[in-house]
Amino acid sequence: MRGEFDFIKNLRERYELSAVGDDCAVVPQSSGLDLVVTTDLLVEDVDFRLNWTSPELLGHKALAVSLSDVAAMGGKPRWSLTSIGVPETLWNSDFIDRFYKGWHALAEGFGVVLIGGDVSRSPDKFVVDSVVGGQVPKGKSILRSGARPGDAIFVTGGLGGAAGGLQLLENGIRYADASGWQQRLIERQLVPLPRVAEGGMLLEKGIVNSMIDLSDGLSSDLHHICEASAVGAEIEADAIPIDEDLKQFTSSGEGQLDFALHGGEDFELLFTVPEEKISELDPRLYTRIGIVTANVGMVGLTRGSERVILGSAGFQHF
Amino acid sequence: MRGEFDFIKNLRERYELSAVGDDCAVVPQSSGLDLVVTTDLLVEDVDFRLNWTSPELLGHKALAVSLSDVAAMGGKPRWSLTSIGVPETLWNSDFIDRFYKGWHALAEGFGVVLIGGDVSRSPDKFVVDSVVGGQVPKGKSILRSGARPGDAIFVTGGLGGAAGGLQLLENGIRYADASGWQQRLIERQLVPLPRVAEGGMLLEKGIVNSMIDLSDGLSSDLHHICEASAVGAEIEADAIPIDEDLKQFTSSGEGQLDFALHGGEDFELLFTVPEEKISELDPRLYTRIGIVTANVGMVGLTRGSERVILGSAGFQHF
Repeated sequence: MRGEFDFIKNLRERYELSAVGDDCAVVPQSSGLDLVVTTDLLVEDVDFRLNWTSPELLGHKALAVSLSDVAAMGGKPRWSLTSIGVPETLWNSDFIDRFYKGWHALAEGFGVVLIGGDVSRSPDKFVVDSVVGGQVPKGKSILRSGARPGDAIFVTGGLGGAAGGLQLLENGIRYADASGWQQRLIERQLVPLPRVAEGGMLLEKGIVNSMIDLSDGLSSDLHHICEASAVGAEIEADAIPIDEDLKQFTSSGEGQLDFALHGGEDFELLFTVPEEKISELDPRLYTRIGIVTANVGMVGLTRGSERVILGSAGFQHF
Repeated sequence: MRGEFDFIKNLRERYELSAVGDDCAVVPQSSGLDLVVTTDLLVEDVDFRLNWTSPELLGHKALAVSLSDVAAMGGKPRWSLTSIGVPETLWNSDFIDRFYKGWHALAEGFGVVLIGGDVSRSPDKFVVDSVVGGQVPKGKSILRSGARPGDAIFVTGGLGGAAGGLQLLENGIRYADASGWQQRLIERQLVPLPRVAEGGMLLEKGIVNSMIDLSDGLSSDLHHICEASAVGAEIEADAIPIDEDLKQFTSSGEGQLDFALHGGEDFELLFTVPEEKISELDPRLYTRIGIVTANVGMVGLTRGSERVILGSAGFQHF
């Protein structure tokens, strides 16, 4: 059985689709701007469970995941087309009104306008396809493919929290009943905050060679950068910033690292910067976790005196 | 229970979404061009049935319905983002390869490039969201809202064929076994050809006040124009061009008219032109079916000596 990334790679090669494969597609827009545009399809019981979230939180997340893709290009999100497939029972409730309430609460914060969409009936599962378009100064989009050997590797925020929240939900803990660190972990899973401001600042500095958002998981997404850039990477386990609340969830360093490496859905930014330019980064916002190498496709993880080869173990649908 | 069009209208008003409500959203792109962009969500067993079509034909249709929306703005389609939600059994077959084969065969004909998309697993139904972006000379998009009293109303092609094909499929006739007029009717349903060239020509002439594609059905789509333009319409039953193959399916004039008025999915263009400019239209390509009136929201249908008020009886998901 082939994986989804192989499928996309195959499709890209067969039909010579050079634009496919980054967080957003880049379309020339005017003499000064490029359009960046992305789509994320979320399917009930695969990408979310209705009894784990609320309609408002789901509306937020549906938009947030696409905003995160725009952030990963350094783009400024502008508009969205949001399509929904709705089972009849949900249609006849306040579900979609509440869904769009949550959607708009986030959209307003980022100046994103809903310009269209489609409504279809769905036999039994709610599905939403979230398309976001944004702007980037011409030719300045930060791609996955620009990493160079010697670049330092950075991430925003702390990792593993979203996966910790997912684990709590799977353990039967619900957002409405949770408090403290448990509630915050579940929020990381259900109500992610896309790093749009950080992505824009990084683009403005003009020092970032490659960038991706952490949707599948650090291990998987670092491999995406390495493949697109034809490079390798070495990262330090002790340098990976662990979500503060995840440390409450498990005191095991091994367990924390596993969430941070393979958990996915943190929607932080992973990016690379040439060594001579890292002084331009605010160290309070970004954590250095490793270095890009010329060892194509190979990602090594050093932990104490041990070095392991890091596979691509993040989330895949297939 | 509210209908889907009421829902969209309500959403539009509550959040002041002025861009929502046409075949495509119009986004300023450069000093000379606007971007037009549309999305269509197709859900298995609601919008199509896998045992009535083939993966290739479904790939064609998923793209065709969105190309038709671009055509209805007078736009030139350029790129697509296509997202799919795939049940595991289909993933492990040649289904999606064949789906994209059909998709690309149509895309190449119109110079449309796949620039992205998303792949998700789906529990049991195949879903596809088809996003197409196109270009229109700045400020020249043909909207639903430009119809003026006195405009003549035109359609391209013949109507009712797609609904006739749907009826044949519902009666148990399959595309592979059909021939002659039955095969052609089923093709109208399964493999629609969007009127991109005609839409572009109409825009170029600069004589069209309003336009929409016939996806929901003539009665419903004419109401959409009337509502958006704050006008009414009077159409002549005998003037409505009936699909030639539909005449083989039923010799009843009543039956043919019913398919043509309410059937939907013909993906022909419905548009209005000021009286003094209709001489610029090639009468072999377009049929005049009526006139725009000042009788806001009222659509009258004259048949012989009888005049009836035409409700909006085309397809709605809810």
